[in-house]
Amino acid sequence: MTTDPLVVFTPSGKRGHFPVGTPILTAARQLGVDLDSVCGGRGICSKCQITPSYGEFPKHGVTVREDALSEWNAVEQRYDDKRGLKPGRRLGCQATVQGDVVIDVPPESQVHRQVVRKAAAARAITMDPATRLYFVVVEEPDMHSPTGDLERLERALREQWQIEAVTADLSLLCKLQPTLRKGKWEVTVALHKGHKDNVARIVEIWPGLHENGLYGLAIDLGSTTIAAHLTDLETGEVKASSGLMNPQIRFGEDLMSRVSYAMMNPGGDHEMTRAVREAINDLVTSIADEAGIDPALIVETVFVCNPVMHHLLLGLDPVELGQAPFALATSESVSLPAREMDLTTMNPRAQVYILPCIAGHVGADCAAVALSEEPGKSQDLVLIVDVGTNAEILLGNTTRVLACSSPTGPAFEGAQISSGQRAAPGAIERIQIDPVTKEPRFRVIGSDKWSDEEGFEADIATTGITGICGSGIIEAVAEMRMAGLLDESGLIGSAEQTGTSRCVPEGRTHSYLIHDASAEGGPRITVTQGDIRAIQLAKSALYAGARLLMDEMGIDKVDRVVLAGAFGAHISTKHAMVLGMIPDAPLDKVQSAGNAAGTGARIALCNIAARAEIERVVREITKVETAIEPKFQEHFVAANAIPHKTDPFPELAKVVTLPTPSFNTGGDAEKTGRRRRRKA
Amino acid sequence: MTTDPLVVFTPSGKRGHFPVGTPILTAARQLGVDLDSVCGGRGICSKCQITPSYGEFPKHGVTVREDALSEWNAVEQRYDDKRGLKPGRRLGCQATVQGDVVIDVPPESQVHRQVVRKAAAARAITMDPATRLYFVVVEEPDMHSPTGDLERLERALREQWQIEAVTADLSLLCKLQPTLRKGKWEVTVALHKGHKDNVARIVEIWPGLHENGLYGLAIDLGSTTIAAHLTDLETGEVKASSGLMNPQIRFGEDLMSRVSYAMMNPGGDHEMTRAVREAINDLVTSIADEAGIDPALIVETVFVCNPVMHHLLLGLDPVELGQAPFALATSESVSLPAREMDLTTMNPRAQVYILPCIAGHVGADCAAVALSEEPGKSQDLVLIVDVGTNAEILLGNTTRVLACSSPTGPAFEGAQISSGQRAAPGAIERIQIDPVTKEPRFRVIGSDKWSDEEGFEADIATTGITGICGSGIIEAVAEMRMAGLLDESGLIGSAEQTGTSRCVPEGRTHSYLIHDASAEGGPRITVTQGDIRAIQLAKSALYAGARLLMDEMGIDKVDRVVLAGAFGAHISTKHAMVLGMIPDAPLDKVQSAGNAAGTGARIALCNIAARAEIERVVREITKVETAIEPKFQEHFVAANAIPHKTDPFPELAKVVTLPTPSFNTGGDAEKTGRRRRRKA
Repeated sequence: MTTDPLVVFTPSGKRGHFPVGTPILTAARQLGVDLDSVCGGRGICSKCQITPSYGEFPKHGVTVREDALSEWNAVEQRYDDKRGLKPGRRLGCQATVQGDVVIDVPPESQVHRQVVRKAAAARAITMDPATRLYFVVVEEPDMHSPTGDLERLERALREQWQIEAVTADLSLLCKLQPTLRKGKWEVTVALHKGHKDNVARIVEIWPGLHENGLYGLAIDLGSTTIAAHLTDLETGEVKASSGLMNPQIRFGEDLMSRVSYAMMNPGGDHEMTRAVREAINDLVTSIADEAGIDPALIVETVFVCNPVMHHLLLGLDPVELGQAPFALATSESVSLPAREMDLTTMNPRAQVYILPCIAGHVGADCAAVALSEEPGKSQDLVLIVDVGTNAEILLGNTTRVLACSSPTGPAFEGAQISSGQRAAPGAIERIQIDPVTKEPRFRVIGSDKWSDEEGFEADIATTGITGICGSGIIEAVAEMRMAGLLDESGLIGSAEQTGTSRCVPEGRTHSYLIHDASAEGGPRITVTQGDIRAIQLAKSALYAGARLLMDEMGIDKVDRVVLAGAFGAHISTKHAMVLGMIPDAPLDKVQSAGNAAGTGARIALCNIAARAEIERVVREITKVETAIEPKFQEHFVAANAIPHKTDPFPELAKVVTLPTPSFNTGGDAEKTGRRRRRKA
Repeated sequence: MTTDPLVVFTPSGKRGHFPVGTPILTAARQLGVDLDSVCGGRGICSKCQITPSYGEFPKHGVTVREDALSEWNAVEQRYDDKRGLKPGRRLGCQATVQGDVVIDVPPESQVHRQVVRKAAAARAITMDPATRLYFVVVEEPDMHSPTGDLERLERALREQWQIEAVTADLSLLCKLQPTLRKGKWEVTVALHKGHKDNVARIVEIWPGLHENGLYGLAIDLGSTTIAAHLTDLETGEVKASSGLMNPQIRFGEDLMSRVSYAMMNPGGDHEMTRAVREAINDLVTSIADEAGIDPALIVETVFVCNPVMHHLLLGLDPVELGQAPFALATSESVSLPAREMDLTTMNPRAQVYILPCIAGHVGADCAAVALSEEPGKSQDLVLIVDVGTNAEILLGNTTRVLACSSPTGPAFEGAQISSGQRAAPGAIERIQIDPVTKEPRFRVIGSDKWSDEEGFEADIATTGITGICGSGIIEAVAEMRMAGLLDESGLIGSAEQTGTSRCVPEGRTHSYLIHDASAEGGPRITVTQGDIRAIQLAKSALYAGARLLMDEMGIDKVDRVVLAGAFGAHISTKHAMVLGMIPDAPLDKVQSAGNAAGTGARIALCNIAARAEIERVVREITKVETAIEPKFQEHFVAANAIPHKTDPFPELAKVVTLPTPSFNTGGDAEKTGRRRRRKA
């Protein structure tokens, strides 16, 4: 009895016997090996390239002879002449089994190839986008059994790709007939498969084999900036990244001022919607230009954003989000054609997916963080903090995930700080205060030198030193606390109390002078008592939110902390801990996840199953509303002290010993001041 | 043992025992009695009105006492005060069972009430439209378990109406939040349920109970005219009917000239699409105005049309329909939002349904005729002819249905006839020729008197006698044949041969003079030899198409003939038979179905199951393409004689004896003429 030849695929290890003459692509399909093909085995798309291995394979128990595959054929030759096949490569649809053989499927020939994320975390994204290309040969029309061209295209997709239930909108239908004839009844279609309705929409059609790629956008739509990643939907590669300011800033710096603008100005919400949609249209054009692709090849866009941006993007009045009970118009994910949102610069039939919102204050951006950081899959208890104007906080492990948002205000972004500014060249971003001399040294965006290092002056010659950004103010306050310039209650000591002339009186309180360029007409950069109060309010809110989730979870210690967002990537974890922004934890267990929301958007763009997953996860998250929780206020007040009035910070104490001055002489200076004013 | 009271519903006869206190609506629902309710039993919509009957009912074996139902309650009183209940009526959701009772459900309280069609045929339409109203009470938002307003509306529909999987587009989402709050969390939604995708779309939402009705349009989009019926989607009542000329006429009178216009003029198809859509938008506004309703209450539109109009309506280039193999872009039914077709004057979320096309020459209008006339349900073999510029022909019975179209040309509509004109005041529409005197008498549109009756002159004083319309020319030719003025081959005899001076020479042929107003400066109305030839070409095409289907069916006699369309309603069946337009059949078996295509559109509008049905029927119809069938030419030539060269017309012979003159002296006069010309 002769046995059919054995075919072993690597790296999967899948194996099976196949009759002589079986194409490798056929064998791969029958075994469920992940081998790509757009043209369906017609030898024109080259997606099914494989590498046969020859010789002895004791591990597989196979000896592969030189003639294990059919000879190089005319189709392969034509392809090689035209495009060039890498040495050793064959086309899987052309090479047929002649004897036992070991076949390696290189990563670029795998449909579900894995793309390693750029971010620190090593988790890879498995490519399985909603939109894919399919090459089909369509039957020509026949007067004897008349059917529409669309119906024959549908039949071809059913018979050649087992795809049922295809839909096409009018704009696609308009180009169907000329495209079929131009391609001589061979066309490539891009099909978008809805993960909820399971409907395959024909997004685009090209004559013949389409070889110019297919792209998607992952957009992190923030209140301040809009960041987009243009991603190749076949390889997962990020072809270009681009960002711009959210033009809604002219209607209000923060979210609540935009909601107010909508409330106070009839049609104000429409103005803001128009502005953000125009900005996105521009962004699409510029990012496609940057990557050198036709913007019509962008067939999908995933958005993550907070609830107010979510509503303004969709053209929904955000007014309900400005008042209790903070009702969202819709909380579930949204799938719709881009043109319904007037996004007209990408493919006219491009599809948009917006992640679900968790609650009226906890948006699709937080859902994206959950998708990226997967607290629900964490064995240890993880606290994830995405700091912005609102901090969004997740706490959980495999048993349960909780979420809330906390109104930190814009202090962490350098707003409402006397010398505060956005993170831009000229801004102090890092600072150290000598505990003995109380003298500061600092670093400024635009230079990688400290202010006392040689060459610093030259580096900053053009920008100057203009202010302090968010991460700078956090370090400044924490360093002041560590250097004994600030007591636990947050009071700045006088020059007398602190022993440095940098502590200067300012009304009834004191400021700490970091840099004085006023002699040269430059700014005088100080940290005022008001700045400390603003940071205290913000960090108390953040800490109180985290504590509320810990209460709900019934724990008073977390195993690790993840700081998400651009802010999280820039602040020093030690300083954040000194400030008491986050609960006490071992410092090496406090990590930055970079732009986790943006990563979540990319995951949802590249992997359709991730959409269903995050929708399930969001439904299961326990939502905690800070605004109505009486304990929030308690936690908030207790968290006012630096780092905290009552909670011990034993892990922090292992690395930092905080001095214990008290600058309050007979009551809080401010309170005293106020009391006096009342008397007057 | 005591038994629960017996409730008997009429007219259904359904009966059951229910505990004392059961609301009648609940009893009806449990028994599957067809009792309407929009508000779900809250006593506000009044749709569930019923009439209890009292006394002895030996037929049902019941005695109904005066106290068989609960007493008139406050809800009923409030409703009666506000709107007035008809005497004897109760609200089914308020009145509860107290003893044995007989309950009549009046027709207007039935959901699936039947609407008798206005057309001659007695078949009724069962009301089951795709769009229905649902009143729901929506849960208020709760900060403790935050969900979107849409999700809570969905839950209400699921829990209160068992409706799963609802979708809402952005424009609906925009009005969701204010409407819910305006209605104090009670709203009425109009849901459109797709019969293919089974998705329920929220088409509209109103605060509180919506009581202003819901409407749909059935539109018969013809090459020449656009006719619309505005239909109440709850009662099925036609509230207004309106029509206008198809403005595409300016691009070409008939279909092929419009296809040519699209071929010859780049963008010509778009011009025609814009023109017809604008006309429909105007029609929607005017018909709503006529009925005194808000056009935003029009939530559905069904179109029937021929394939060229179908493509031009959808914005598809009709060029492929102008040449073999006559490929449709899509042949299946089309469901889409009206706004995708720029139909903007009805509800912004109105849905459009277009019936499937049967083939490249046999359109959705013919499908609508099949839906209305149901040849596939006919026990006897029925031939259905819809005469227009193209005749669409159906032949079938319960075993099989065949369809074809035949290029009759516009002669039957009075075009290409020397004195021809549209059916408008002043046109001769009926004619009789005295077989002895050969003198004509006729009737003119605008008067119901014959031309030799008293008062005729006065009636037509303003319009005059301007020409002959389609039905007029058919009668004229048939009467000429019956009066012996025309021989079997279609030759008009000379004055000498026929014995009447009304046969006047015209070149080498003769014409028959019907009316001469030239002395008064009016027209001279004749039937020329050329007119006869034009009618012969048209009737031969029609007959040949019918014969081809009969061949395919393997029969040479049909049991009955249905003439559909406006034309079919106006022509005399006897004259059509004399002409040999249709195969021989007993005259009483030749009926007019009126505007069967329009009726089919109304059926599809009012009954969603009819949509699935006609889609199935169309798929099963055997399509016969006349253009490529060699036998068509044979049949066409043989049908040139009047009534026919070879086929006997025994049924016609029972009622009409045709004279047998022959005016051909040594060959066909025309041929002779032509031969002479060639010689010269």
